[in-house]
Amino acid sequence: MEIHSKQPIRVLCAHVSEHVERPVTVQGWVHSIRHLGQLAFVNVRDRSGIIQCVFERELTEMPLSLESVLSVSGIAALAPKAPGGMEIRAVSAHCMSAAAPLPFEVNKKTIGARLDTVLDHRVLSLRHPRLHATFRIQSALAGAFRDYLCRRGFTQIFTPKIVAAGTEGGSNLFPVDYFGRQAYLAQSPQFYKQMMVGAGYERVFEIAPVYRAEEHNTSRHLNEYVSLDVEMGFIQSEEELMDLEQEMLRYMLEKVAAECEAELALLGVDIRLPDDIPRIPVAEAQRIVERKYGKTSPKGDLDPEGERLICQHVAESGKAALVFITRYPREIRPMYAMPAPENGALTASFDLIFNGLEITTGGQRIHDYEELVSSIRGRGLDPEHFAGYLDVFRYGMPPHGGFAIGLERLTSRLLGQSNVREASAFPRDRTRLAP
Amino acid sequence: MEIHSKQPIRVLCAHVSEHVERPVTVQGWVHSIRHLGQLAFVNVRDRSGIIQCVFERELTEMPLSLESVLSVSGIAALAPKAPGGMEIRAVSAHCMSAAAPLPFEVNKKTIGARLDTVLDHRVLSLRHPRLHATFRIQSALAGAFRDYLCRRGFTQIFTPKIVAAGTEGGSNLFPVDYFGRQAYLAQSPQFYKQMMVGAGYERVFEIAPVYRAEEHNTSRHLNEYVSLDVEMGFIQSEEELMDLEQEMLRYMLEKVAAECEAELALLGVDIRLPDDIPRIPVAEAQRIVERKYGKTSPKGDLDPEGERLICQHVAESGKAALVFITRYPREIRPMYAMPAPENGALTASFDLIFNGLEITTGGQRIHDYEELVSSIRGRGLDPEHFAGYLDVFRYGMPPHGGFAIGLERLTSRLLGQSNVREASAFPRDRTRLAP
Repeated sequence: MEIHSKQPIRVLCAHVSEHVERPVTVQGWVHSIRHLGQLAFVNVRDRSGIIQCVFERELTEMPLSLESVLSVSGIAALAPKAPGGMEIRAVSAHCMSAAAPLPFEVNKKTIGARLDTVLDHRVLSLRHPRLHATFRIQSALAGAFRDYLCRRGFTQIFTPKIVAAGTEGGSNLFPVDYFGRQAYLAQSPQFYKQMMVGAGYERVFEIAPVYRAEEHNTSRHLNEYVSLDVEMGFIQSEEELMDLEQEMLRYMLEKVAAECEAELALLGVDIRLPDDIPRIPVAEAQRIVERKYGKTSPKGDLDPEGERLICQHVAESGKAALVFITRYPREIRPMYAMPAPENGALTASFDLIFNGLEITTGGQRIHDYEELVSSIRGRGLDPEHFAGYLDVFRYGMPPHGGFAIGLERLTSRLLGQSNVREASAFPRDRTRLAP
Repeated sequence: MEIHSKQPIRVLCAHVSEHVERPVTVQGWVHSIRHLGQLAFVNVRDRSGIIQCVFERELTEMPLSLESVLSVSGIAALAPKAPGGMEIRAVSAHCMSAAAPLPFEVNKKTIGARLDTVLDHRVLSLRHPRLHATFRIQSALAGAFRDYLCRRGFTQIFTPKIVAAGTEGGSNLFPVDYFGRQAYLAQSPQFYKQMMVGAGYERVFEIAPVYRAEEHNTSRHLNEYVSLDVEMGFIQSEEELMDLEQEMLRYMLEKVAAECEAELALLGVDIRLPDDIPRIPVAEAQRIVERKYGKTSPKGDLDPEGERLICQHVAESGKAALVFITRYPREIRPMYAMPAPENGALTASFDLIFNGLEITTGGQRIHDYEELVSSIRGRGLDPEHFAGYLDVFRYGMPPHGGFAIGLERLTSRLLGQSNVREASAFPRDRTRLAP
């Protein structure tokens, strides 16, 4: 039980340079081992970086395997040829946890394994510096989302994920057995965030999982993902929501660029801050992709190829590949979407497409009780089924709207990943339920 | 569709004082209406506070109901007798959303309704300033938790809530139908946060819902709650975890005291920062409550009454009513609990009891593969059932441990609420599934 004995103070690899010619102890994973004559060079990796440790004499005979957890004590020394210009001349070392033979190595430029294998062994694959960087950046994105909104007077809310009914009509729901009653996993906090606006918080956000029991098993879909939800009261139109999202994304990307400089450099990602993101009505977007690329679109919408092309169109004009698509027709938006003021067949709604992938859906909501009842009826639905939701609109509800960003999609687009699963530490899809 | 017309710029109630003798527009809920001769005094409430609006002449005849959403334009004026010393001499007003008769009023000192009714009508009850304050404070607590940990080098993680098996042995799980396969809702992110420590992040936290299908329907239990989870690698003992939690709570309470001054004043809550929180082994705590209060305890544990009494004991010595109970016996802690170094029948674990309520469970975990296998076997469990979890310990796992705080329990203790449901916007319990 070595770990219970009094240990020397641990120094992070990145801080060894503050202790030149003095004794230090580092603790971390064995990143690489190289024997050279009478010496062994053991690179130790911790959360701050990698340091070269030089083993001599009997220490070189220590049985060591890659990815074991090692504690090395020695003298910090300048070493111009070592990575980072520092090394530790080891005096003693002990293995805190020995690693078995690895299913794949994590000290090469890329992992030589299929995505499924990488996902099966997350505790190992996430040690690879490139994969590791993804979730540092994701953490920073979530933090910046929170910071920005708190500065703008938003309150963080926590709403239940076990719900009695679906928000979007009842399909794609995961059933839960709730003490013998039928319940479901929430597809979105839509109704709850609207309620919290109406409860007087006016401006609310939530960072929480949502669930979509979609049968798709594509590179764009997860069945459980983190939704960054925003809802705001007393708006005049959905334009304010797009203004907010644009400014917020700018802030988030600036913050990530500052906090994750090393991670972004490692990934070769150059974050381009969006200037004004264009806002294009969907009908016009359809005309553009047809005229320019000969691509026809489904009624009132863009398909994935259309989304890719409209981003390409925007990028060709020298802007970041981000575009708001607006004015979706009522029939493809939910019953709570506010009709557009100039044309009741369209809605005051929008999607944000980032490099060909929809990362946001948003819009103004109907806040008038009678209008909402008539919208529900207009879809052949029964207002009785929405009684709890409708109740919210009976006690004074301001004009309001909001949007939601899929955190994994945002992360994966930002980092140029080809599969959204790469931006989920433990993805859930049609077939994957572990780890 | 009045709301689509161009509106004047809205000023928050709290900012009206910056516009003395100038025209302003406020928008909010009708908090109270008082007719006095030829005048009507209409108090309007928004997210920033309440302002008195003075209606004259035909405006006094406007049909108005409590909690309707109103837009009032007029001249801001000093009014020493009005709440806040300001009022608006209304020139025009229009109703943005009319409220139906209320099931209870929210402008009295307390709500004259049972907790169930209050919870049934959250969009209304949360407008009551006292209830409203709870979730502003909760938002600040969650933010301070994040801030503190990020400063200490922690990474925020997001882990799945749909899982293939339970963490704590398999009881109290909510079953989910996952595309025809049996899955469950996560009772805690325990295994995932340990994995993320082992994946090289070393220090991680998560803010997310967890699920306990406990049949209890008490004032202390929720079936879905927000867990503030922390896990940290390279610790020498669980003492470091208690140090961390103590310092973190201090930071969180300071931050809340600063950010929510008005809310705390309204609730009459005087946040006492904990000095050093005492750490008492459970066997000693049992002796104290027996000797001092004649209270016997169940084997190796304190029951709710014992938890109340040990806090009373600590408070009687002039400290805050907070106490770490340590050294729980192995048989009442999970299989992953690290045995105490001096006595293998006890564990390096702790609970934090706050005013008689357990708000944290934590401890050091076993990180050695063989020791973990033997601990699982020692409980008559089959290591095969934990194969995925055990795998994590085969590739180098540092000593580590962590803890989790129930956000609603922390909030409710801090505010002196008698039922934890009051600290959940939309609680889920044995019978409640809506709203």
